Amino acid sequence: MSFLNLEGKNIMDRTNYIIRQLGRTKNKRYELYCVTRIIHLLNNLDVKFVTQQYVSRPDGFALMDLYFPQIQLHVEVDEEGHKSQVEADKMRESDIVAVTDKQIEHIDASKNISITEINDRIDEIVAKINAKIVELKDDFIPWDIKTEFNPQTYIDLGYIKLSDNVAFKTIKDVCNCFGHNYKGWQRAEASHPDKDTIIWCPKLFLDGQKQEGEWDNTISADGQTITEKNSASKEKAEEHVNIHINNKEKAHKRIVFIKIKDNLGVILYRFRGLYKLNLMKSNVTHGLIWERAKTEIPTYKHLKVR
Amino acid sequence: MSFLNLEGKNIMDRTNYIIRQLGRTKNKRYELYCVTRIIHLLNNLDVKFVTQQYVSRPDGFALMDLYFPQIQLHVEVDEEGHKSQVEADKMRESDIVAVTDKQIEHIDASKNISITEINDRIDEIVAKINAKIVELKDDFIPWDIKTEFNPQTYIDLGYIKLSDNVAFKTIKDVCNCFGHNYKGWQRAEASHPDKDTIIWCPKLFLDGQKQEGEWDNTISADGQTITEKNSASKEKAEEHVNIHINNKEKAHKRIVFIKIKDNLGVILYRFRGLYKLNLMKSNVTHGLIWERAKTEIPTYKHLKVR
Repeated sequence: MSFLNLEGKNIMDRTNYIIRQLGRTKNKRYELYCVTRIIHLLNNLDVKFVTQQYVSRPDGFALMDLYFPQIQLHVEVDEEGHKSQVEADKMRESDIVAVTDKQIEHIDASKNISITEINDRIDEIVAKINAKIVELKDDFIPWDIKTEFNPQTYIDLGYIKLSDNVAFKTIKDVCNCFGHNYKGWQRAEASHPDKDTIIWCPKLFLDGQKQEGEWDNTISADGQTITEKNSASKEKAEEHVNIHINNKEKAHKRIVFIKIKDNLGVILYRFRGLYKLNLMKSNVTHGLIWERAKTEIPTYKHLKVR
Repeated sequence: MSFLNLEGKNIMDRTNYIIRQLGRTKNKRYELYCVTRIIHLLNNLDVKFVTQQYVSRPDGFALMDLYFPQIQLHVEVDEEGHKSQVEADKMRESDIVAVTDKQIEHIDASKNISITEINDRIDEIVAKINAKIVELKDDFIPWDIKTEFNPQTYIDLGYIKLSDNVAFKTIKDVCNCFGHNYKGWQRAEASHPDKDTIIWCPKLFLDGQKQEGEWDNTISADGQTITEKNSASKEKAEEHVNIHINNKEKAHKRIVFIKIKDNLGVILYRFRGLYKLNLMKSNVTHGLIWERAKTEIPTYKHLKVR
C-alpha cells in the first residue's frame, strides 16, 4: 500500500492516517474491539491517536495499544498471557514516549470478562478523555494533519514544548522554526539565534542498544541525558571531548530533535528539549554528557543575530 | 484459540462471538474501520451480526463485509480493485444466504473519499438499521446466543421460518422441534408428525460444486430446488428414483435443514424450507427434484401421530 502520489509526494492525509492506525490493532484478542470502540465512541477528529506506541515506563519498555498524544493518555488492554514488555533493541529508530503509570488507563480483558463490563470500562475511558480535553481549554490544540508538521504552526505559536509532542518531517523544517529560511538542509547541525546554542538532529540510540560505526550516541530512556562519544579510537575520543570542553567557539547548549521512524514508518525529527553540556561529568572515558535543561523553547519569526 | 472448556464443551458466548467476528475484518483497507464503526455506533447487543458472510445474489456469489441476519441487511464496503465475486467451490460446506440488491447497503470507499464522508454514510446506515428494528416491532427477536440454537425457543414460538435464519447445532435438536425427545440422533433422516413428511438434514452442494462419492445432491443458489441423485451406477440411480416415485410409503415432503459450517467454523443445521417432490420433473436422468413449497412450518410440543 503506497501513500505516495504520482509526483512521489507523500499524500498521507487524515483518512489514510486513521485507516492505517486502526489497521494495526491485531495483536491481541480484545485489542481490536477495545481500540476501535474507543475511537468510534470518542468520535472526535480533532483528537489524534496512535496505535502500538513504544513507551518507556518506570518498569521498562512496553508497547501501548492506544495513545492520545495531545492529552498524554495511554490505553492498555490487559489480556492473560500477554505481557507488553519490549526489549530495547526491538525499538531501534522508533518513536518512544516516556510515561508514568498515572497516564495509563487499563482495560481488564481477562478470561471471564463480559462484553458489557468491557463496554462500561470503555465508556469511563471515553468520558475521561473528553474531560481532559475540556480541562486543557485553549492548551488543547485540535489535531490537524496538514499543519502539525508545518514550522509556521510553531512560529505562530511562539514556542515548542515537549508535552505537545512536536515533530517535523525534515531537518530544514526544524531549522526554519528558529529563524532560518532554508529550502533544503542536509547536515545534522545548524545555527541558532543564541550564539551558545546549536540545533542538533541526530539519530540516537537507547542506552543498551547495539550500534555500529564511529559514533556511540545514546539517550536515556527518560530522555534526560544524551551521551555523545566517538568510539573509533582513543585519539578521536580525546579530540572530540577536548574540542568541546576547551574551544570557546563550540556551543554548550543544543536544541535536540532526534531522528525517528513513527509507527507507520514515516521518518520524523521529534523535539526532545534543550540540553546543556555538563562539563563536570564529560570526559574521555564517558564522552560528552548533555543534560536536559529546558522542555520549552522559543521559536523565531526571523533570524536575529549571528 | 480454543473455545472449548475443560469438559470439551463449547463455550462460545456472546463476548467471544463478538470479538471473533470483528477480528475477521481484515481483508480490505476500509473494511475494519467501517465494520467496527457500524457495530460500535449501533451499540446494541440485541442485534446479531456476521462478518464475511457468503451470499448468493442475482449476479453471482459474493462475500459480504457485514450481515445482520435478524433484519436481512447486508453492508458492503466498495473499494477500488476489490471485487467480492466468489467461485462456488470456495464456499464448500459454507453457510450461504440469498440476497437481493435491495438488501445491500454500500459504502463508497473509493480513492478520494474522506473520513467525514464515510462517517456520514455510516450514520445513515446505523439509522436505517435502527428504523428496521422499530418497523419489525414484535417480529424482531432480540439476539440471545444462549437460546438461539435451543429447540425450545422455536417450540415456544410455534413455528420456524426461513427469514428468521434458524439453525441448530445437532440433528437431535432439529428433530426435537417436531415432537421428538431425542438425547442423540445420528441419521440424516427422521420422522415427522405428518405422515407424508420427513425431516432431512443432508449435506448439499451448490450447483456446479465438485463432489465425490455415491450421491450427487445439490441445491440451487436461490435455495428453491434440491436435486437428489445417485451417481454410483445407472441401476442404483433407477432404484433410487423408482422407490421414491412408486412406493406409497415414501414421504413426498421434506423439511430440510442443511449441514453447513458457519464463518467461525461451527457446524450448524440451517433451515431451508419444506420441499415437495416434483413427480413430473423427477426421472432417472435428472434424479429426484425437490422444490420449495413452504418457507414457514409449525413446530410441535409433543409427538402427535405415527
